[in-house]
Amino acid sequence: MKKLIAIFQVALIAFLPIVSLADEGMWTFDNPPLAQWKERYNFVPPAGWLDKVRLASVRLNDGGSASFVSPNGLIITNQHVASGQLSKMSTKEKNYVKDGFYAPTLAEEVKATDLEANVLESFEDVSAKVQAAASSEAKKAVMADIEKDCAAKTKLKCEVISFYSGGEYWLYRFKKYTDLRIVFAPEEQISFFGGDYDNFTYPRYDLDITFLRAYENGKPANTPNYFRFSETGAVDGEFIVVPGNPGSTARLLTVAQLAYQRDVGNPLLETTWKTRLNALETYAKQGDEQLRQAHSGIRSLRNSLKRLAGQEEGLLNSRQFGTKVAEEKDLRDKLAAKPDLNNQYAPAWSDLEKAYSTLPAKAPQLAFSTISVARLGSIASQIVRYTEEVAKPNDERYDEYRDNRLDSLKFSLLSKAPIYPAMEEAMLVAWLTKAKDTLGVNDPFIRAALGDAEVSEVVGRAVRETKLIDPAARKALMDGGKAAVAASTDPMVTLARRIEPVIRELRKWNDDNIASVETKAGERISKARFAVYGKSIPPDANFNLRLSYGRVKGYEEDTTLVPFRTTFFGLYDRALSFDGAAPFDLPERYKAKMGKFDMSAALNFVYTADTIGGNSGSPVINAKAEFCGINFDSNIQKLSNKYWYVEESEGGRAVGVHSQGILEALRNIYETKELVSELTSK
Amino acid sequence: MKKLIAIFQVALIAFLPIVSLADEGMWTFDNPPLAQWKERYNFVPPAGWLDKVRLASVRLNDGGSASFVSPNGLIITNQHVASGQLSKMSTKEKNYVKDGFYAPTLAEEVKATDLEANVLESFEDVSAKVQAAASSEAKKAVMADIEKDCAAKTKLKCEVISFYSGGEYWLYRFKKYTDLRIVFAPEEQISFFGGDYDNFTYPRYDLDITFLRAYENGKPANTPNYFRFSETGAVDGEFIVVPGNPGSTARLLTVAQLAYQRDVGNPLLETTWKTRLNALETYAKQGDEQLRQAHSGIRSLRNSLKRLAGQEEGLLNSRQFGTKVAEEKDLRDKLAAKPDLNNQYAPAWSDLEKAYSTLPAKAPQLAFSTISVARLGSIASQIVRYTEEVAKPNDERYDEYRDNRLDSLKFSLLSKAPIYPAMEEAMLVAWLTKAKDTLGVNDPFIRAALGDAEVSEVVGRAVRETKLIDPAARKALMDGGKAAVAASTDPMVTLARRIEPVIRELRKWNDDNIASVETKAGERISKARFAVYGKSIPPDANFNLRLSYGRVKGYEEDTTLVPFRTTFFGLYDRALSFDGAAPFDLPERYKAKMGKFDMSAALNFVYTADTIGGNSGSPVINAKAEFCGINFDSNIQKLSNKYWYVEESEGGRAVGVHSQGILEALRNIYETKELVSELTSK
Repeated sequence: MKKLIAIFQVALIAFLPIVSLADEGMWTFDNPPLAQWKERYNFVPPAGWLDKVRLASVRLNDGGSASFVSPNGLIITNQHVASGQLSKMSTKEKNYVKDGFYAPTLAEEVKATDLEANVLESFEDVSAKVQAAASSEAKKAVMADIEKDCAAKTKLKCEVISFYSGGEYWLYRFKKYTDLRIVFAPEEQISFFGGDYDNFTYPRYDLDITFLRAYENGKPANTPNYFRFSETGAVDGEFIVVPGNPGSTARLLTVAQLAYQRDVGNPLLETTWKTRLNALETYAKQGDEQLRQAHSGIRSLRNSLKRLAGQEEGLLNSRQFGTKVAEEKDLRDKLAAKPDLNNQYAPAWSDLEKAYSTLPAKAPQLAFSTISVARLGSIASQIVRYTEEVAKPNDERYDEYRDNRLDSLKFSLLSKAPIYPAMEEAMLVAWLTKAKDTLGVNDPFIRAALGDAEVSEVVGRAVRETKLIDPAARKALMDGGKAAVAASTDPMVTLARRIEPVIRELRKWNDDNIASVETKAGERISKARFAVYGKSIPPDANFNLRLSYGRVKGYEEDTTLVPFRTTFFGLYDRALSFDGAAPFDLPERYKAKMGKFDMSAALNFVYTADTIGGNSGSPVINAKAEFCGINFDSNIQKLSNKYWYVEESEGGRAVGVHSQGILEALRNIYETKELVSELTSK
Repeated sequence: MKKLIAIFQVALIAFLPIVSLADEGMWTFDNPPLAQWKERYNFVPPAGWLDKVRLASVRLNDGGSASFVSPNGLIITNQHVASGQLSKMSTKEKNYVKDGFYAPTLAEEVKATDLEANVLESFEDVSAKVQAAASSEAKKAVMADIEKDCAAKTKLKCEVISFYSGGEYWLYRFKKYTDLRIVFAPEEQISFFGGDYDNFTYPRYDLDITFLRAYENGKPANTPNYFRFSETGAVDGEFIVVPGNPGSTARLLTVAQLAYQRDVGNPLLETTWKTRLNALETYAKQGDEQLRQAHSGIRSLRNSLKRLAGQEEGLLNSRQFGTKVAEEKDLRDKLAAKPDLNNQYAPAWSDLEKAYSTLPAKAPQLAFSTISVARLGSIASQIVRYTEEVAKPNDERYDEYRDNRLDSLKFSLLSKAPIYPAMEEAMLVAWLTKAKDTLGVNDPFIRAALGDAEVSEVVGRAVRETKLIDPAARKALMDGGKAAVAASTDPMVTLARRIEPVIRELRKWNDDNIASVETKAGERISKARFAVYGKSIPPDANFNLRLSYGRVKGYEEDTTLVPFRTTFFGLYDRALSFDGAAPFDLPERYKAKMGKFDMSAALNFVYTADTIGGNSGSPVINAKAEFCGINFDSNIQKLSNKYWYVEESEGGRAVGVHSQGILEALRNIYETKELVSELTSK
């Protein structure tokens, strides 16, 4: 019936770039949607509200969001955001992912392996300084200087970040926490109830939460800016704000760029992800321990593939794609009415079109020429690259090897997270086999990687004989620099060394032919957009802090209604309706507790806020800045919002765990009274 | 994502007219799908099984199915099948629909107003006798003779019924019950929980049941053939059989006939139904009592419109429609290989195509030239027609006025069911206004009905002054015959008398130009089909007893799984998730019982059996012929099965109330221990 509805929606939705009447946008804190809040929700944030929200919001280096929920460094995020850490902390004997965890006292809290948390302390517009530099290289040098200067002055983590494809540059200063300890995690079976089937689906019934605590100098961090837990949580129709770190949208791309993603980029991405997923799934079939090792990677890839399918479906929908064509036409028509600007900016579109015409032929090489799909391959390649880059002046390096990034890089490269050689080998063999099939035996990357040897021979030896499993061996190479790498006979390092020139050449090709064109064109198109519409559209998401907002609201699907929330009753219904067959099985604790707690408590809920991957773990707060729930999913209808805002009426919704359900579970299912007391003390 | 799946299903499904490997077909008892049962489910019915199933199956004249569930005439059907009767029995003071009903003793059971139940006692192939007659009129005469002869001999209700558009004729002999009493009905809010939104939707949570008892000579009927109630009900994957009276399918129609339905017939039907629905909805807004009066009609029309939308969606789906084109081509190609038969039968397709080309111009007149949309109009028209028809010899009458039908006709025409004049007037005014707008003031029906008067004037007087509200007045006219009708000054009768010639002329046009062509062509196409495929395809459904079968099975929808059953937990989840807003509000009794009964009991379930409207109330039985549940709905995916079997993999499912949930509700929510004891005694 969704189809039937679609039949009648043939008219293109007019593009309204003025103050939008929709809950649209992932807004930067320098340009919050105050006009929309006032107009749609009669909400005017009181003094200090925005600062408090910003300072209580947390970004995790595992690619998710989080927030402080007590003055003593207590953080809440999603279990699926923390699951990588939980997996790294786990052993054959103690499985934090499967069994969950609770530390009633500080002493029992367990340090996460290599997690970093960032809080956006302040920001500053540095567009004028950066844009004054003429070339791409000169811009980079300016940015490196600004960052270095800032770091020296503030001792904070400083980053100059490009917005609007270079239309603006901002210096972001982050407070950084690297000592994070696990306080509570539920059994994954309840945080991810329904598994991949119910992922991106609603109604859902998941307790997707994990509590961490930030430490400084061995003591719980002092975090005066935090969100108080709401006992009642959000009600139907309530205005909510979702601060978080949305990963990446592609809404300001041109039609040519989008068509590339639709026709080449996404299908290629699907192939590479499926190659990796198949390798892990095959490996996991060998036994329970193998399944445990591969589990987190499998979950993540399945999630990515399901999301990609939804995004690609959006691009393939000619009505929705037509909206983008109409938007671009509107901008270009209005620009044409300003001849001076038009002469200056209009060529950007044809430049991009020309650049992208060369990409399809090169894309498979760009996608497959890497060994970073396995952790040992990634470590080796990064060490080789690190030693080469740090030998250069700061402003001539690849972005990710600039001085201000090195701490975080080392933190991750020297992590003690466990590595499973058999899984590494399975992954690398599958990957290089597919790469060879795709690129052919005479491809430069394949020649460099394999020479005349078989894939299994090269990979087998590299994994068997490498010393990189030991962080000390990595440190020795990094400290030893280019000479140490050049002298190394570690076969994983020599493999990385052999392919490095090919990878650098491809990167250069991409920088010269695509990235630099994108930067130049992007800047001009952004300026054109500012000239025509003003700064009425937020920049594309880039894993930095944004404000989304909307209201708690159900929707129509097929010919019926989907409610704004679900309850624990629904969890038990779904489990029993499948006879408890996986992935709809309940943890033992839940079976025992059936009927022994308030099953009418709200478990999950939906709202119209504009979110995307990276918003996982974002707090959902009300006008009083109380914690009403935690964002953890979107429904399928919403997935094409990578490319455009999905109208409320089309049923796109973000999905959260409701604070009422979190408290009910902690109190009466897990009986974690210390944690509840910390969350609810006034 | 349904759309995404559809993208990849472009290949036409090959037509397999041999023993189907699907759970396809509504099979007559003379040709049960024994081969499929054996092959797919290894089920061979033991001796007597089919007879028992037939004799325990009941057809209700309100257009639904039912079954015996005790040896003492106890019948179960759906509340929505019985709701017309419940509504007729209700008054301003006592609302059987809204509040439900329970009679713990025989003495407390309440007689249904005008309900008739039929049981198929026996059947006999009379094709040779009927087909030997050359003309359509001659055939009718033969059929009338066979029926009269049978009735005289057996004292049963005898009907000669055409199958395969005249490809076969069967004499069906029915045992008839006209004294049916209500034993139990739940509150409609629980039988129809979720209202029109959840209609044709699954997962569902409805207790759509009503118990009746058949009486003979003032005593509970002796019904040795009945289905024992199963305590456990059907489990996942279990083979089930659904005997019942599917209303009408159109699967053996030609492409030309289907295209007419798609382009003209269905849109016109939608217009007429919407006209009636709007009139009732407007009337119902006047107050609670008006709402009570109009409620059952509104519910029925909304149901019809939602179903029609689903059917039309199927016809508009070019992939599915293409399957019909391919089927027809396959039959005609194979027929062409048998030149003798081809010469004889092939012209049938072009005859139909030619006939149907004349229909669109006439269709609005055929649809709108009636006053039978209101009960008084229907009574008046039927009395006028009755007196004229019964004056003729039996075999020259319209089918529905043949001697063997007169008892049932009088039963219905003389019913004491309440009539609400204000609602009658609202309905007739809206209808004639729309008819006038559509047909124009010079249309013969409009001229006859209105002359130069206004709609409101004609209808107002007719409703105000008619005596037909009193069944005695109707009986007097019927007994008085043509003369009494001709002499009547009752303005509803004179209105019916004025339009009768127009209606008769239209009926004659339809008989001469469409129906007779259909009969002749249908017989030839059926013979062609028999010649090519044998009797491997069941005839189109025609409100007579059929066997459907399949297995209990969930399905995929969008990107997740839909379970094979639901539980009471889900009912409470859905109610609470909407904050109890209508139509997701629970009756008071259910609010009070929350947590005080076994909420894990199965409430609804789905299965692959091939059913359609008319199957409502059909028992769902297992291989032991035990009652496992009662059919009451289909999901949206299934609606186009009017035109073709919806493959199991496309998610089409029938929906039933599970016997486990029925027993749990009767025992612990309604505490009807006498009824439970009758259902479960061994």
